[in-house]
This record gives sequence, structure tokens and C-alpha cells, in this order.
Amino acid sequence: MNVPRLIERKRDGKPLDPADWRELITAYVGDQVPDYQMSALAMAVVWRGLEPAELAALTEAMLHSGSALDFGDWPVPRVDKHSIGGVGDKTSLLLAPMVACCGAAVPMISGRGLGHTGGTLDKLEAIPGFNVRLSLDQAVDQVKQLGVVMLGQTPEICPADRKLYALRDVTGTVESIPLISASIMSKKLAEGLKGLVLDIKTGSGAFITGPADSVVLARTMIGIGAAHGCRTVALLTAMDRPLGIASGNALEVVESLEGLKGRGPADLMEVTMALAVEMLLVAGVESDAGAALRRLEETISSGRALEMFARLVEAQGGNPRVVEDYDLLPRAPVVRELKAGRDGVVEEIPPRPVGHAIIALGGGRARTDDVIDPAVGLEIPVKPGDRVRRGDLLARIHARTQADAETASRTLAEVILLGDRADPLPLILGREQ
Amino acid sequence: MNVPRLIERKRDGKPLDPADWRELITAYVGDQVPDYQMSALAMAVVWRGLEPAELAALTEAMLHSGSALDFGDWPVPRVDKHSIGGVGDKTSLLLAPMVACCGAAVPMISGRGLGHTGGTLDKLEAIPGFNVRLSLDQAVDQVKQLGVVMLGQTPEICPADRKLYALRDVTGTVESIPLISASIMSKKLAEGLKGLVLDIKTGSGAFITGPADSVVLARTMIGIGAAHGCRTVALLTAMDRPLGIASGNALEVVESLEGLKGRGPADLMEVTMALAVEMLLVAGVESDAGAALRRLEETISSGRALEMFARLVEAQGGNPRVVEDYDLLPRAPVVRELKAGRDGVVEEIPPRPVGHAIIALGGGRARTDDVIDPAVGLEIPVKPGDRVRRGDLLARIHARTQADAETASRTLAEVILLGDRADPLPLILGREQ
Repeated sequence: MNVPRLIERKRDGKPLDPADWRELITAYVGDQVPDYQMSALAMAVVWRGLEPAELAALTEAMLHSGSALDFGDWPVPRVDKHSIGGVGDKTSLLLAPMVACCGAAVPMISGRGLGHTGGTLDKLEAIPGFNVRLSLDQAVDQVKQLGVVMLGQTPEICPADRKLYALRDVTGTVESIPLISASIMSKKLAEGLKGLVLDIKTGSGAFITGPADSVVLARTMIGIGAAHGCRTVALLTAMDRPLGIASGNALEVVESLEGLKGRGPADLMEVTMALAVEMLLVAGVESDAGAALRRLEETISSGRALEMFARLVEAQGGNPRVVEDYDLLPRAPVVRELKAGRDGVVEEIPPRPVGHAIIALGGGRARTDDVIDPAVGLEIPVKPGDRVRRGDLLARIHARTQADAETASRTLAEVILLGDRADPLPLILGREQ
Repeated sequence: MNVPRLIERKRDGKPLDPADWRELITAYVGDQVPDYQMSALAMAVVWRGLEPAELAALTEAMLHSGSALDFGDWPVPRVDKHSIGGVGDKTSLLLAPMVACCGAAVPMISGRGLGHTGGTLDKLEAIPGFNVRLSLDQAVDQVKQLGVVMLGQTPEICPADRKLYALRDVTGTVESIPLISASIMSKKLAEGLKGLVLDIKTGSGAFITGPADSVVLARTMIGIGAAHGCRTVALLTAMDRPLGIASGNALEVVESLEGLKGRGPADLMEVTMALAVEMLLVAGVESDAGAALRRLEETISSGRALEMFARLVEAQGGNPRVVEDYDLLPRAPVVRELKAGRDGVVEEIPPRPVGHAIIALGGGRARTDDVIDPAVGLEIPVKPGDRVRRGDLLARIHARTQADAETASRTLAEVILLGDRADPLPLILGREQ
């Protein structure tokens, strides 16, 4: 393998052989290809892209660089949902137990907050004792027993992706739809899935802001899924405002539990149900969307989904009584309210400044080694398009100090604009399969 | 300095500040920026290019990473010629002594053969004893005394360029007009020049094969020269066939000496004179091309240029009698002739296979640590468009063994095509200033 020649091929816009990608990734993870060649190649991929056969080979090579969840001949179909990141997006905490109640198993490997967005692992860890650091064997055992597990990345899964991602992070080569797609899909395919539902966030708060790019990303990942025998469907959902009312880890756990009790905010429940319906369809446990929806609603009205969540918490070291007793969750000492200063229509609630306000409160990370305070966060009960009167509640700020609360309040007063009209995105913008 | 953000800016097609380039190069040569970031940035430059202000800053930073030839207030104007590489191109050996006879000094730092092309240093070293490894101080002293020096790169000149070039060589980032231009110009500007003439080879045997790219390269380097107060002119010359008759190091020395005696091949002399005229003009020692040409011709008819070459050889450790006694040069034991197998017109003499045939004979390097045999090479007395009869001489092969000669003969018989018509490029295709 002549690595400079391969880099030149890609630089000149020609595809590499699938065998070259496999050999490259194997050599890279074995320290036989230096970082300086891989970063130049990554930049050439940002420039020139990857053809479907290259993408499949790259994904497969990263997948095979490590171990996968091994379910042997266990017959229950596995299904997962992956979101590319948003603010207030706690759908995983609802749909994992719901879907697990419907005959599909959910081996969900999630991430932490990234940039202005929150992460499922950080939310789960707001529950005292909840352990997301399971081994692959523990995860498989729990799925077989309970039907659901929620854990973090393990060192055995896709080491090539981890090494390459760390390099891309410092070489300006993160923003590449094929590289993003291969990175996500290699890790998802390691879960041994029959089906996967992608939640492609769109709008100002998404990592990929343009609808056209969202569609390309969705189709790219669907193509990889298809090449590996994993039925993949994508919903494009709005991230021009936070999802639900609560943003911040413990607050989002409470909102999730309320959702499992049938009392969740309408937008959160609509997106959650739409994603969960797709999960039942790709898992093959339902063939009709209407029937899938009724089955999912029954898991809530019957209390079975809430019970499944309690069993999940218990299985992973947390106190299952948290589902009834929210006082078991950490609570911020300062709660401050922001009121509307005038009558008007809520024009926008931009997710990026909201997310950054949560980080400033201590509820997210500015650096990867920052420690999160799970108690802090925001509740924003209004939505773009809502008409408010002067003095109405715009936001409730949960902070560690009065000064922090004051800062967040000022930020929110600046970005939650009141005016004459709003033009929010539809909640579900599209579907790709 | 946040290097990942700088890489992202360039990736997104935005220019970096000149100050950023200076800081980057300084940090890189001081091992403060890792290779894996510099290679990703280099690929982004291959993709997006550099704006003139960036190019000037990059060139200046590389120039200032090391030492330069320091002529103090010595008043004689310095001038040089740089070629981007060809086969049979020995113009430097002729024009350096000629120009030095005309009141301009020539501090010429040259390179070795690269790929299929020959290098001035390798040709000079065919003269037994000729030492191209001079220090910067020795070079300055010799120029002040004799008016001409011909040496190789020294470690003090542009260490940043040397480090970056070695990285580009293994990361598919050589082929970038701005990076090529900055690399060449930083080294040429280190010679302390008033003027510089570029010989931009064009045609199938050039590194840059397209005429449009040749013009862009020429204009890019001219712009850098102008930004640094060095008058720079470029001639675009044909490299769709070798220049002159001889290719191979000792053979080219003989042909150069014949040229200095007024007996050089017409194409070689035409290109040499055109370049030398431009050198006298940019040096400011002549303002009229006709007068410059007459003055140069006089250096040959009077024997002064040949004498200057002899003094140059002597000053750098060689035997000056070589200019009269070619037996002092190494000679290959086997000489074999290739004759025309039919009547016809010479359609083409492609420089790349000719250059590779010389490497195969041992006269060039397949790897950088190969040792060159200066004696071997080719004489090809025909030119595209020449009409030959069956049995006429097409090439004379100078080889170490009969087997080597046989191989070269077969190669040449395949590539020197005889047919009905030829379509060679004009010898001088254009001029840029």
C-alpha cells in the first residue's frame, strides 16, 4: 500500500478501492500509517467526498477494528434511534422503554453533550447511581433479560473511529458528511441492529443547519445502513427551538418521566411518538404505522413504559423510586423567573444561545474535562408563535448562584424575541428511507 | 493561535491573515505545530489556494526561517535563472558564466534530478572534484571574487521550506501552484537577488503539463518576486522533447562546453540566449534586448564565457583543463547506436520515457539515496519534425553494460515514433512579467 498515492487519488477526485480503505484503516489503528498522512487524506475527503462503495468499506473497516454487541442467535429484533444532537432533546429516555415494551429490544449506546447540545449519558447520570459504563457482555445480558440497556461508548467499540475522530477534531476535518456518517454508522452497526431510526435535526440549532445538507446526511447514512443489512429510516425534525420545555439534565429527566406518565409537552411527545413508530416498523414488530402508534400509546396509558424505565434504572444501579419521587434528583438552589417585558408574539427561541446559557450555568461542558452540574438548567414554557402578555412567564432558570441566574436571565431576555410574527419550522420536516 | 480554527478557515475558502501565516511557519519549524495539522492545512491549500497577501507572507516566513546570502552593500546586481525541471536542460551551465562576463553576478543555488528530470548539481559533479557543497560565506566570497558560484542547498537556507516539503512529499500535497511557488521563491529570494528569470517548462515532459497552469505558475511566482523587490520574468519553453542532443550528466557537460565554444545545438542555444538576455535585462545591466544578445554572443566568440567556466571549475575544486580535454570526464564503457528502421518523419521524442531510460541506465535516481553514474546517458541527434531515412542514427546510448544498452535501445525504439507528421511546440511559447 502506497499511502501518498492513495492520498493523491482522493485529492484528484478519484475513488479508492474498498480494499484500500480496509487496509488503510487497519494500518492506521495499528499505528502503521502516521497521523500526518491520515489528516491530509481526511481533508481530501472533506473536499472530494466518498462514493457509496468507499463509504461502505470505510464504515465496515471501522466497525471491524473492534468488538460488537454479540447477541448470537437470540431472536428478538434489535432497534435503536440516533439523533445528531439538539437542545432539550430527551426523546431517547422515553422511546427506549416504550419500544422495549413492544417486543423489540433496544441496545442503546449514547454520547455526551457536544458543543451547545445535551447528551443522553449526561441526562441519565443525573439519576443518582445510574451507571452508563457497562461492558459489552453486561449490555448484552441486560438486553436479553430486560429488553433495553442505555450505556456509553466502550473502548472495544470502533477504536479506529475513536482514533480518527480525535485526529479530525484538531485538523479541521470534522465537517464532512461522509466522515460523519461513517463515524456514526460504524458505532450503531456495532450494536447488532435489525433497524435504526435517525433523527436528523434541522434548523439554526442543528450541527448541520441547511435542510439540503440534512437530506444528504440522512440519505448517506441510510445508504450505509442498507449496505450492512440494517433497515434505516430518517426523520428530519425541527431544531430551530429547543424540544419540550426543560433543558438541563435533571430537569429533562423529570420531563421524560412526566412524558411516560402521559403529561409530556406536546412537541416532545409528537417527535417521540413519530420516532418510536418508525422504530417498531424497521424492527418489523409492526407493519402499520397506526397500529404501532396505538401500541406505543398503550405502553404509556397502562404505565408499562414507566415501569420499564424504573426497571432500567434499577438494573443500572439507580433508585427506581425516582420515577415517583423527583426529590431524589438533584435540585438547584436558585430558581429565578424571567417574565415578558411587553405583549407580543414569541418570534424565536434560538437553541444555540439557550444551549450555551446552560453550559454557562454549569450544566454542560466548555471543555471535555469539565464536570457537569446535573441540577441546573432552564424551563422555557413558551414556543415560537405563542402570544404572551406583559408579565407572563418566559423562562424559569435553575442555577447554582444568583449571579449565574442573573447572567442567564439577561441572555434569555436578549434572545427570546417578542414581536409581531414567528416563522418556526414544522416539527417534522420530512422522512427519508 | 488556534491552529484547528485556521485550518477550518482555509478549508472553508477564506484567507488567513499574513500574521497567522508567519506565526504558523515559525511554530512549525520550532516543532510547536504538529505535522498532522500542517498536512491537513497543506491539503486545504491544495484545494482552496492562497491569496497574494497570504502567498507573500508564507514565502517571507519560509525565507526568514533561516539565513540568506548576505552581500552587504556590494553594488554588483545579482541575478539567477530557475527552471522547473526538464530533460537535457543544461542551460544553467552556459548562461551562468556568460552572464557573469556581462557585469551581473550569478549566485546560483541549484537542485538535483527529480523524477524523470536531470539536476544541475548532478551535471556539475560529473566534473571530477567539482564541489557543490559550499557554505553561505564561501559562496558570497566566490561571487564577489569571480562573479559566479554554483552550489547546492545548504541547511541554513529556508529550513521551514525543507521541513514542509518533506511533509508534502508524503501527503499528496506537492501539486499546488501556490505551495510550489512559495517553496521555489523563498529559496531564490535567499540568494539576495535583484532579478530572477524563470524557465517554465511546458508540454508532456514538464511537471506541470498544461499551458494554462504554466501561465498561472509563472504569474504566481512573478507576483511573489514583485512583493519582495525582485524583478521576475518568466519564459515558457517547450518540454515536449529533450533540450539539445545530450541527456545524462557527463554528456551534458560536454554539450555545454561545446555550446560555450559556439558549437551547441540550435535549440539549446536559442533557449539559453533567450534566458540570458532576460537575465541581463532584469539585472539592469542592459536595457535593450538586442544589445544584451550581442553582448552575450561576444562572451562566446571571444572565449570569455568558456574561460569563466574554467575559472568556476577551478574555484570549486575541479580541473579547469576539462574545458579542453573531455577525456577528464567519466566515459561509459558501452556505446550502442539505434538506427531508424524505416524512412519517415520523427513524430515525437517524449521526455518522460527518455528521462526514465536514463535513470534505468544509472544516470538518475529512482530513490533519493541512489548513487548516480555520471558517465551514462543518451545522445538523440534528431528532433520532432526531422525527416530520416532507414538506417539513419536516431540515438547513441552510453551504458555500463550491453544489457543496459539493449534495454535502453528497445525503449527508445518504442517511443521515438516515425510517421508522417510531427506537431512539436514552438521552442519559446510565451513570456510573462
